[in-house]
Order: sequence, then C-alpha cells, then structure tokens
Amino acid sequence: MFVRNQWYVASWDYEIDRAPLARTICGERIMLYRKFDRSVVAMHDACPHRLLPLSMGIKEGDNIRCRYHGLLIDPEGRAIEMPVRGERPHKSICARVYPVVERHRFVWLWMGDPDRADPALIPDFWPCSHADWNFDGDYYHLKCDYRLVIDNLMDLTHETYTHQGSIGQQEILDVPIETRVEGNSVIVSRWMSGIEAPPFWRNALKQEGLVDRWQVCHFLPPSSVIIDVGVAPVSVGSTLAKHDQGVRGFVIDALTPESDISCHYFWGMTRNFDTQDVGFTARLKKQQAAVFLEDVAVLEAQQASVLANPQSKMRAFGIDSGGVRARHIIERMIAAQPAAAGDSSSGG
Amino acid sequence: MFVRNQWYVASWDYEIDRAPLARTICGERIMLYRKFDRSVVAMHDACPHRLLPLSMGIKEGDNIRCRYHGLLIDPEGRAIEMPVRGERPHKSICARVYPVVERHRFVWLWMGDPDRADPALIPDFWPCSHADWNFDGDYYHLKCDYRLVIDNLMDLTHETYTHQGSIGQQEILDVPIETRVEGNSVIVSRWMSGIEAPPFWRNALKQEGLVDRWQVCHFLPPSSVIIDVGVAPVSVGSTLAKHDQGVRGFVIDALTPESDISCHYFWGMTRNFDTQDVGFTARLKKQQAAVFLEDVAVLEAQQASVLANPQSKMRAFGIDSGGVRARHIIERMIAAQPAAAGDSSSGG
Amino acid sequence: MFVRNQWYVASWDYEIDRAPLARTICGERIMLYRKFDRSVVAMHDACPHRLLPLSMGIKEGDNIRCRYHGLLIDPEGRAIEMPVRGERPHKSICARVYPVVERHRFVWLWMGDPDRADPALIPDFWPCSHADWNFDGDYYHLKCDYRLVIDNLMDLTHETYTHQGSIGQQEILDVPIETRVEGNSVIVSRWMSGIEAPPFWRNALKQEGLVDRWQVCHFLPPSSVIIDVGVAPVSVGSTLAKHDQGVRGFVIDALTPESDISCHYFWGMTRNFDTQDVGFTARLKKQQAAVFLEDVAVLEAQQASVLANPQSKMRAFGIDSGGVRARHIIERMIAAQPAAAGDSSSGG
Repeated sequence: MFVRNQWYVASWDYEIDRAPLARTICGERIMLYRKFDRSVVAMHDACPHRLLPLSMGIKEGDNIRCRYHGLLIDPEGRAIEMPVRGERPHKSICARVYPVVERHRFVWLWMGDPDRADPALIPDFWPCSHADWNFDGDYYHLKCDYRLVIDNLMDLTHETYTHQGSIGQQEILDVPIETRVEGNSVIVSRWMSGIEAPPFWRNALKQEGLVDRWQVCHFLPPSSVIIDVGVAPVSVGSTLAKHDQGVRGFVIDALTPESDISCHYFWGMTRNFDTQDVGFTARLKKQQAAVFLEDVAVLEAQQASVLANPQSKMRAFGIDSGGVRARHIIERMIAAQPAAAGDSSSGG
Repeated sequence: MFVRNQWYVASWDYEIDRAPLARTICGERIMLYRKFDRSVVAMHDACPHRLLPLSMGIKEGDNIRCRYHGLLIDPEGRAIEMPVRGERPHKSICARVYPVVERHRFVWLWMGDPDRADPALIPDFWPCSHADWNFDGDYYHLKCDYRLVIDNLMDLTHETYTHQGSIGQQEILDVPIETRVEGNSVIVSRWMSGIEAPPFWRNALKQEGLVDRWQVCHFLPPSSVIIDVGVAPVSVGSTLAKHDQGVRGFVIDALTPESDISCHYFWGMTRNFDTQDVGFTARLKKQQAAVFLEDVAVLEAQQASVLANPQSKMRAFGIDSGGVRARHIIERMIAAQPAAAGDSSSGG
Repeated sequence: MFVRNQWYVASWDYEIDRAPLARTICGERIMLYRKFDRSVVAMHDACPHRLLPLSMGIKEGDNIRCRYHGLLIDPEGRAIEMPVRGERPHKSICARVYPVVERHRFVWLWMGDPDRADPALIPDFWPCSHADWNFDGDYYHLKCDYRLVIDNLMDLTHETYTHQGSIGQQEILDVPIETRVEGNSVIVSRWMSGIEAPPFWRNALKQEGLVDRWQVCHFLPPSSVIIDVGVAPVSVGSTLAKHDQGVRGFVIDALTPESDISCHYFWGMTRNFDTQDVGFTARLKKQQAAVFLEDVAVLEAQQASVLANPQSKMRAFGIDSGGVRARHIIERMIAAQPAAAGDSSSGG
C-alpha cells in the first residue's frame, strides 16, 4: 500500500545527531543516528536478539549496544560482540540497514530493495541547497493518510476557506488553473498576468509597478509537492516555462507515510530574496505554524470522517485535478510493484 | 442492529441554534442547526466533495459552506455554489438530509426511508408540551448499549441498591409489579393503595391523609421509557386505568443509540404541580444529576462486563419482565426490517 | 493459550481484606475478599443476574449483595436472596467460585477444573513462610506477556546492561552458566568459587575471607522463577547440590498472566540474615523498586516491538537457554491440555 523502492525523507538534517532517533516509516520502525564522521545510519529499530528497540540502546563510538543483553551492533547492522564475552557472533545476526543519503537539507531513506537504491533517483530539491537561496522549515506529525495532504497541496483554492483567517484570498479563485502530467510528475499552474503585487510580494520585490505572478504546484512521486511561487515585473517578460527573474520561493512539502492513517510532514520554504534576513526567516516559520494548524484541523477531521463513512466516496471537482492525477500515479506505481516479498521489516 | 424507520430524539430543543451541532445517531454522523425561521436542519455531517465534516463549516444565512474548499450547501442538502465561481454544481452533489420534526420539546429525526417519515408516528409525549405542565431536563452521554438503559428503567427495584445513597427505598420491593404488553408497548405498573405519602409527594400534594400511589413504566418503541408517577387522595378513587387527580409527574427517558455500545440519554421530568416554582425545577435537575451518576457507574460497568464475558449470559428474573418484553419487541422490529440497502449513511 | 489446571498467585496476603479486590487472571475477571474467619473467597466478578461486577457490590457479613438489583450471593457463589423478597433463588443462579489457598504469603487460585485442585500442587515456596527467614515484597502490573518476564529472569546477564545504572556488574559475564531441566523445572546456575564477596554479601556475611557465591534460577511451572543467591566461606565446602551454610536469599518472582499482553508480577526477597532488621527490609524494597522500573521500561518496549514486528523472530543465544527451556515446558503443557470446554469464565 506504500510505494516501494523510493527515497523518502526520514528527517531534517538538523533533527539527527549521535543519539538515536526512532521514527516509523512506511510501517517500519527505524532508528537513525549520526556517526562521528557525521554520516547517518538508518537501521531497523529492533535488536536481532530479542527485539528490544535499539534506539533505547547505549552508543559506543559509532556502534550501538542493546540495552537488554548488550549485543553490540556496528553501523552496518552486524553483531560484533555477543552478550557473553569470547563468543563470536554468527554473521546471520544482524539488523537490517537502510540506504541513506543526506541531500538538500534532508535525510533520505530508500524503502525497498537496497540493490536498487540509486541516489540519482532522489528528487531534485535544488533550491533547498543552493548558495543563493535561504531554506528553513519544520517537522510536523499528522494523523492522516499522506495522500490527503497531497490533495490539499495540489489544490490551493482551499486557502480561501481553510485559511480564511490567515492567508486566504478570494482573488485566487478568479484565475483558472492548468493541470498537466509530465511522466510521473503532475503540474498545476496558475498564472496571473499584469496584476498588482500583493503586500507580501511587493515587500519582497521592493519596486513599484505591475507584475506577473505565479503559483505552480509540482507533485513529485512518491509523495512530495513543491510549490513554485513568486512575482516578476511585467517588463522582464516572464512565462510559465521561464520565470527566473523577480523574487521567487519554493514551498517544499515532503510527505512520508508512517502508517495508513498517519504521516510525517516536512515543510519548508526556500527563497531567493532577503536571504540574509534572519528575522524574516523566523517570522515566516512562525506564520506558517499558525497556517499549518488550520490544515491539521481539516486534514485530521477529514481522515476521521473517511473512516467513519466507509460507504461515502470522495468526489473530484475540477479543482481536484492535480490531486486526482497524483493519486493515479501513486496507484499505478503500487500496482506495478511486485507483491511484497523479501522486503519485510524483519531485522535480519 | 438498530430499529430503522423510526423517529429518534436527536436533541433537546434548547441544544440547537444556528451554529451546527454534530451528533452521531444510529451510527450515522449528523449535523443539526436552525434556520432563521427556527426550523431545524439535519444533514449528513460530511461534505459531498471531500467528506470534511460540514459541522466545521461556515454558516452563510441558512446555508453552510464547507471549511475546506468552500462548497456551499443549502438546507435541503443541495450544492448551490462550487469552489470555483461560475461552475454550476451538478444536482447529484448533495448531502443526505433527514426528516426532522420539533415536538414536545425535542428534535426528532427519522432514521430510515424518508418517504415513510410520518410525523404522526412520533410518540405522544403530550405532558412535555402541555400548558398546565412544567417540563425540564438534561442531556447525558452513556458508554453503553441503549437497551441496558431500557432494562434499567423498566425495573425500578434497582433504585433500592444502585441508589441506596439517594432515592432508594426498601418499601418499593414489597409491592408486586404487573407487566403487560399492548401492541408494541410494554407497561410495568406498581400500585400502592392507601399508604402514607412519602415526603416528596406529601410536599407536592399539600394535604394530609392516606393516598394511592403509582409508578407506571411505559416502554414506547423504539427506545423511550415514560414513567408515570404520583399520588392522589384515597378519596378520589384513582385506578390504574384512570388516575388523573392528585399530583402527578412523568419521568421522560428518551434513548437514542449512538453506536452498539454508546447512546444519548435525554432525561426530563414533567409535572402538574408547583409548575411555576422555578426553584423546585432547578433543585429537581440538580438532584437528578446526582442520582444519574449512580446509574452511569452501574450501566457503564455492566457494559464493560458484558464485553469482557462473552460466554456469560444475562439472566432474567421476574423483576426483569418489562425489560425482557421491551427487548423482544425491539428484536422483532429489527427482524422484520429488510436488510439495509439504499439506506446507507452515504452523503449522496 | 494459558496453562490451565494450575495454581497461580492471585495476590499477596496483605492485598486482600473484607472489601472486594477485582483482578483479571488468565483472562477471567475475578473478585477476591476475605471472610470474617480471614479465609479468602475468589469468585467470578460478574453478577449471575445482569453481569454487573460483584466487586462493586455491598458486603453483608461474608456475603455480597449486587449493587444493581440486590441479588445476595454467599461465599460459595450461591444466590441466597432474590431482588424481590419472598422469592426463592433457583440453585442454578450462582457465580463461579475458584479454589483458593493461602500459602507462603500468597493467595493462590486454581485456574481450571475445580475437581483437580490439589493444594499439594502449589509450588513449594518454603523460604517465604519459614520462621527463620524474612520475606517481603511488592506487586507490579506489567504490560507484557508473562513469558517475556520469565525470559528476563532466567538470564541474569541482562543485569549488566539493563541495570547498568543500579545493580549491573560486568563480572557476572565472566562466569559460565549451566542449564539443566528436571522434570518440568529448569535450573540455570552460576557458581563462583573462591572469590571476594561483593559489598552486599560481605555486609550480610559479616566476616572476611574468600567465599563461594551462587546464583541459581529455578523456573517452576507454570510461571514462577525463584532465584537462590548467596555466599558462604570457602571453608564450609559448599556445592551446587548443597549450600545451606553462609548467608542466603531467594528472590521470588511469581508471574500471573492477566491477558496475552499483560501480567501481574509478585516480587519479593526472602533471606536468612539480618532477619530482624526492619530498616534493611525497607531499603531492599526501595532499591528493588528502582531496579524494577528499569525492567519495566525494557519489557514493555520489547512487547511493543514484538507486536510491531510480526515478521521478526526473536533469536536465542546461549544465555537464553533457561528461558528457551522454560518456554518449551509451557508450550508442552498447553499442547497437552484438552481444548477449553466446560471451563469457561461464565458465571454459572
């Protein structure tokens, strides 16, 4: 029910240090920690001996010793010291380790066949790690199916109502959206030509005059949405295909399923303006937290309603075209994958 | 498992106003609100678009706008405005509405086929809405099968033990009960001839001398119990068939299933004495709350015990004859109803 | 899934008095109380009438009256008074009573066929009730399968890591253990010859010089572990077979399943030294509580991990030989018992 053989965001870079962090990803309990060389270890969070979570263990250098009987596990998941001294651990005694790559400020885990874990398949979140851009954000836990969040992000009309007390704008509704599919990606774009810049963007642009404004939502499988937003003076002649002038941001939304009905949400914004303004960054995070609570209330209530109304089906309107197409891609990817086998969460 | 095609009490009249009230009835999530004309709307509490509870929505006049994408629904459950302006909602986009009637101080919902919703079938709670009577009461939520409450109410011997700290009386046990069935109704009566009135009733009657006293429990399907209580001077010659002299009250107990193991309890007392005494009414409600907590402890513990002891069966003694017969009627009504179909809680 | 036809510890002697104590044992809800003669009654905790827990009832002498309708039950579980006076209870109206014996400071219940309840089958916890020994301890509730606790107790190497902040010692790991099975009992022994006594035992022994030290874990079916610990001067020539000189204690661990994933843990220590030192006894209990919290954290996390990792199997190392053999005995006993029938928890 999850898309396998994919890179998922397991955490922000700043969430992990030498002490283990326990997080369940695609139903698998995983422990994450950094080695002295700062590289990240991701391991099944159950001792291969008696299944005690290894995240409760004692770090010894880059190894971890189980808190129960003291089995010592190295960063490759191999038992290297038995509870009784002098015994040699059999090589079959090991915890599953997950391919892990740190990139674009996130720690990515490969959930699936390790032999297929190609870092080139990690989505290109380049504005999150580009020197000219400023990127920051937060981690949230949501009690809902990650696909409900993707629906939410691929249709920004919800801002008008869900966020009417904060960022909602009626004007958004007046501009039509365009939805298109490119391979396994979905793009929903809204292009506003020759308008007055709203206050947020006027402050960012720091100049008068009419602007072109855009909101382009990209669904990237299996579960990310990147929203390209910004304005540029009409004079520079921006197009949907090319709009790298003016001021621009990318809202980064990386979702990672925890279970069928819960997920991890890594939210951030990266921008190419006021990049040295620490106060701006802090205000943005604080504002986003308030907006986000409005989404949490809606998404968790929607999930509860879905569970309580098994006979009721969700309907799709025109505004849902982006989410619908993203779900189709997810379903197709799940259907294409072989029935789970040799791919268990077993710590062995 | 619930009796369908019945009127159930959804709320007290005073519980509902223009803001939506969410309540689950017979397993269906329902939203209730009043229109400007004070009539009550009862609607499936899930937006026909993406299932967000409509009770989280924004009231616009008598309509409700979904908090998620702004679908506007009228009081008949029809979508009248799409999230994107200018689009015309298809008439299939609608939320189920429930027949609703306000009568005898309660809001009644018809759970079943709307074409069969005949207000004449609403139980006749006339003393709740008669000008010469004073009626007040409260709402309680109980974590037990509503039938356990009916058992409780159809056998007042429990007062002696469950309520030994409050209203319990040993004397009750000395007078035999009579149980009879009239159609789908069950009547358990206890007639005490020529006795001293207990303090409560002596205060009400305001005269000396021996009285006849009665306690007559009426089960009215699917799930109400009305208890006719009172005393009259021996001299007026009351009988079980006719006892409208003296002082009299009806304890009103309307149960509405929420789930298999929880229910809504609408309790009240209506009386024909001291009807203008506001202090008496307030004291009565306060006393009842204390008595009621004793019932809650017993009923919820009994429900937990029933669930924990699947091999144990409840036994019926003579005192249970009223409850047993009420349960037979409920079972017969459920057996007689067609297998659920076209009767789903689906919002559409 | 539980071993039937066995004596289980239901409580410490000091936990029960005339007011009923409710405790679920092997999935059966049971009420325990003392009669005036101090003998203990154990009864199915559900009124044979309407299943209200009898433990909510009203004690009348040695009988208990149900809080709901007042059915009066005698200590043999027989109804002796009906809710309505004058009615004679039918002899079929009864609550199941359990054979119960108070011995060695514990109250033992026979879970199974009452005709087979032979007190001679109660495990011989003689040091708990011998005049020359001092015995005290506590009750704990654990959210884990009782067999995880047996594993824990049959392998004391865990002390080194789980209890590294309290009683853990690296030295324990250097001495090999011996495991043997005697009938349905398992013995894991660690014999340390001619060593320096550690501080605890030197204080107990009150003399200088090298000692022999022992740790002998006895598993007694269905679910007790007794650990024989102590030291004796080398001069007395102790052996594993005979070591009744010196100072000695027995750690008593009686486990009683509550459900598949929870259990009751009756822990105590009995000793033959400083038996009149009340302060020592109190300190020992206090220290044990701190140690015990370390076990609780591990055992409950292990249980959660077992449930969350259905595909992962626990591995057994050499140190687990005692627990493995104890589990084999438990499995064999369960396999040997007839499929449950006539052995229900039904109160009748």
